[in-house]
Amino acid sequence: MTAMDDASARERANLGRPDFDTLRKRAFNLRWATVDSDVIPLTAADPDFPAPAAAVTAIAEYLRAPHLCYGPAAGLPEFRSAVGAHYRANKSATGVSGKHVIATNSAASALALIARHLVQPGDEVVVQDPVDFLVAETARRAGATLRYWQTVDGRFTLDGLAAAVTPATRLLSVCHPHNPLGSLWDQAEVVAITNYCCERGISLLADEVWSDVVLDGAPFFSFASRENGKHAPWVVYGLSKGYGLAGLRIGAIIAPSEEEAERLCATAGFDQTIEGAATLSQIAATGALTHGASWLEEFLRHCAAQRDMAIARLSALRGVRIGHKPSATFVLFLDIRGTGLDEGEAARRIEQHARVRVVSGSPRWFGASAKGHVRISLATTRDVLDEALSRIERAWPQITHGCDRRPDSLQDP
Amino acid sequence: MTAMDDASARERANLGRPDFDTLRKRAFNLRWATVDSDVIPLTAADPDFPAPAAAVTAIAEYLRAPHLCYGPAAGLPEFRSAVGAHYRANKSATGVSGKHVIATNSAASALALIARHLVQPGDEVVVQDPVDFLVAETARRAGATLRYWQTVDGRFTLDGLAAAVTPATRLLSVCHPHNPLGSLWDQAEVVAITNYCCERGISLLADEVWSDVVLDGAPFFSFASRENGKHAPWVVYGLSKGYGLAGLRIGAIIAPSEEEAERLCATAGFDQTIEGAATLSQIAATGALTHGASWLEEFLRHCAAQRDMAIARLSALRGVRIGHKPSATFVLFLDIRGTGLDEGEAARRIEQHARVRVVSGSPRWFGASAKGHVRISLATTRDVLDEALSRIERAWPQITHGCDRRPDSLQDP
Repeated sequence: MTAMDDASARERANLGRPDFDTLRKRAFNLRWATVDSDVIPLTAADPDFPAPAAAVTAIAEYLRAPHLCYGPAAGLPEFRSAVGAHYRANKSATGVSGKHVIATNSAASALALIARHLVQPGDEVVVQDPVDFLVAETARRAGATLRYWQTVDGRFTLDGLAAAVTPATRLLSVCHPHNPLGSLWDQAEVVAITNYCCERGISLLADEVWSDVVLDGAPFFSFASRENGKHAPWVVYGLSKGYGLAGLRIGAIIAPSEEEAERLCATAGFDQTIEGAATLSQIAATGALTHGASWLEEFLRHCAAQRDMAIARLSALRGVRIGHKPSATFVLFLDIRGTGLDEGEAARRIEQHARVRVVSGSPRWFGASAKGHVRISLATTRDVLDEALSRIERAWPQITHGCDRRPDSLQDP
Repeated sequence: MTAMDDASARERANLGRPDFDTLRKRAFNLRWATVDSDVIPLTAADPDFPAPAAAVTAIAEYLRAPHLCYGPAAGLPEFRSAVGAHYRANKSATGVSGKHVIATNSAASALALIARHLVQPGDEVVVQDPVDFLVAETARRAGATLRYWQTVDGRFTLDGLAAAVTPATRLLSVCHPHNPLGSLWDQAEVVAITNYCCERGISLLADEVWSDVVLDGAPFFSFASRENGKHAPWVVYGLSKGYGLAGLRIGAIIAPSEEEAERLCATAGFDQTIEGAATLSQIAATGALTHGASWLEEFLRHCAAQRDMAIARLSALRGVRIGHKPSATFVLFLDIRGTGLDEGEAARRIEQHARVRVVSGSPRWFGASAKGHVRISLATTRDVLDEALSRIERAWPQITHGCDRRPDSLQDP
C-alpha cells in the first residue's frame, strides 16, 4: 500500500484536498450536486480536486486591476502563446505557434464550430465507435451522415479506418487520447492516419481534450505536429480534464495554418463577438499552463494509482472484464456483458444497491459498440474511490442477482 | 459646471478610476489596446471604468473554495434567479423567473442561438435600420432574408413596422433600448409591438443588452413582461454595457416559457455542454446584479452628464446634427451629412486630424440608413471625453476642409 500512502500524502500537499461540501453545491453534470446525498458519483469526467493554485493566483493577480473589457477575437495573446508553448514542449507539436491557436468557450464548442466549418449537410464523417458522444454529436449537428470506425482487438487501426471510409468521406473526427477506452496512438500511427487522410483529401479533426492526462510517463504525439506531413489537421484542446477547469469553459482550436485560423474566426463569428472565450477563463488557463506543471504531475501519478487499484478490484468481480489497461484518461470502461445485464440495468442496479453512480455505456453516450459497458471516473480521492469500490464489491451479488449469462457471452461479438 | 464636478467626485468614489495603462494592454475590440498611443478611442461600447467591486468581490469569495467544476447546463441557479429578480425589480418584467433564464456566453451568442432556433433558411426576418450590426448579422447567419423597419421622424413606429412585414415574416428582431439611436419605447409601444406580432404569428426577439443604461431616471418596460399579453417574446440580456463585464462574455436568454427554455437548451447544445457560460463569469454577474446597484446608479448619472456635455459641444460644430437626445445607452449617433463628408472619410479625418477614433456609420456596422453618421462612445472619464471633444473642436476646420455641402443635404432623405 506504499504507493497509495504516497499518493495520499501528495494530495494533501500540492494537489489539494477536495471540499465535498462545496462539491455538493457546485459539481453538476451528473456529479455531486445532482445525486442523492448518500450516492458517490463516478460519472462526468471532471476531477474532484480543487483547481491548480497557479490558475487561482493568475485570476487574483489579473483582478488587481479590475478591467474586464473586451479581449481580442481569437483570444488573449498570452493564452494563445501558452497553448502553443504547451503543445511544443509537451505534445511533440513542432511548428505550432500562438497564431494557430483560437481560444474557445470549451473544447465541446470548438468541436462543434470546426464541424460546422468543414461539413456540409449530407457529407460523410467517420467517427470512432465507441467514442465520447460529443465527437459524433458535433458532426451530426453539422448535418453529417456518420460512418463508424470500429476497433480491431480493442485498437483503432488503419484497416478499421479503411473499412469506414468511402469516396464521399469529407472528415475524419477522432478522439485522442481516446475516451472511453483510454488508448493512445504512437507517433507512427498519428503520422499514418494523417497521411492516409491527406492522400484522400479527407479533413482531419482530433479532439485532444484528454492529452494532458497521459499516464506512466508515456509520450504523447499530437496531431498538431507540423512534422506530420503537409496536411496539418484541426486539433481541439481543453483544460477541463487535465487541470480541472471545466466550469471555466476554456478550450482552444489549433488550426492547420494561420490563414485557416483567421478564416474560422471570420466565418464562425469570433470577429463579430458571437464566439469567444471569457478573458478570465483564459487568464486562469494561462496560469495553469505556465505554472501548473507540478500540480499536473501529481495529479497524473494519482490517476495512475487510482487506475491500478480500480482495475485490480473490479477485474475480480464476476462478469467484469477490462480489455486494456488505459494509457491515458482517468476513466475506466468496464465490459459487463459477462454479468448478463445490459448497460442501463447495470447502472441502475449499481446505484440502487451500491449507492454509486456510473455512466451507462448507452449508444447515446458512447456509440453502438458501447453496449454492455459502463464507464467510471477515477478522478476523486483515494478514500472516496476505495469506498465506492468497496460498496460495489459488497453489493455485487445483489447487483448481478438473477442473471446467468452463458460463458460464451464473455467473447466480443 | 457643478454637475460635472459632482460626477468627477463620484468617479473617484464608487465608480472607480480607470487605469489607462491597464486599458492599453487589455481593451481590445477597437479600443485602447488597438490604437496608436496618442489616439483616444471612442469606439466599441465598453466602459473604461473598472468593473463594479461587487463583481470582483463575488469572484474572490467563490475562489476561496477553488472548485471550478461543471455548472448546470442552463446556468447556475443563483445567476438565473438574479437575472429574474433584476428583470422583475428594474424592468417591469412581471412574471419572469429564473426558470425562464439561460446563461449564455455573451448577449451576442444568445442572439445567434435564438435566431438559429427560430429561423429556417429563406425565412423573412424584419430588423430595424439603422441598428447594431449584431441584430442583422445573427439573423443573416441563420439563413434569413432580411427586411428593414425604417424610422419615421427618427422613431420606430407601428406604421413603419407594418411597411416591412409580409406574409412570409417569421421573426421581428429588435434592439431595445436602441443602439445607436439611444431611443426607448414606452410600455404602450412595447405592448403594441408585442400584440402586433402575436396577432400575425410572428416571433419576436428583443435585444435588451442596453436595458441597464437608461438615463434620467426614465422607466424601462421590458419585452419580457408576462403582462404584455399571451405572446411572451424572446429576450436577450447582457452585462457588457451596464456593468462593464464585456470580457467575461456573460449574457442571458429570457425564454417565452420554461418549456421553451428547456427546448432551446436541448436543441442549441446547452444540455450537451456545447453551449454555456463560464461559472466564474456567472458569479461575477450575480455579484454585480445583487450588490452593484449603487455602482450602476453613479455610472448612469455620469453617462447622462457625459451625454449632455457631448451634445452641447458637438451640436455646435458646422454640419453636425444630433436628431434626438438619447434616453438610453452611452453612445451618440452624429449625423455628419451637413459636412459633405461620407461616414468613412469623416472617421478617417477625425482620427488623422483630431487623434480620436470613432465608429463609422457604415452599412456594415449599422445598416444602410446609417450612412452619413458616426458613432461615439461616452463611457470614459470626464477628462478624457473633454480632451477628445476639444481635439475634435480644434481640428474641425481641417476635418471639414474642402467640403461644401449644400444646405439641403442637412435634411433627411
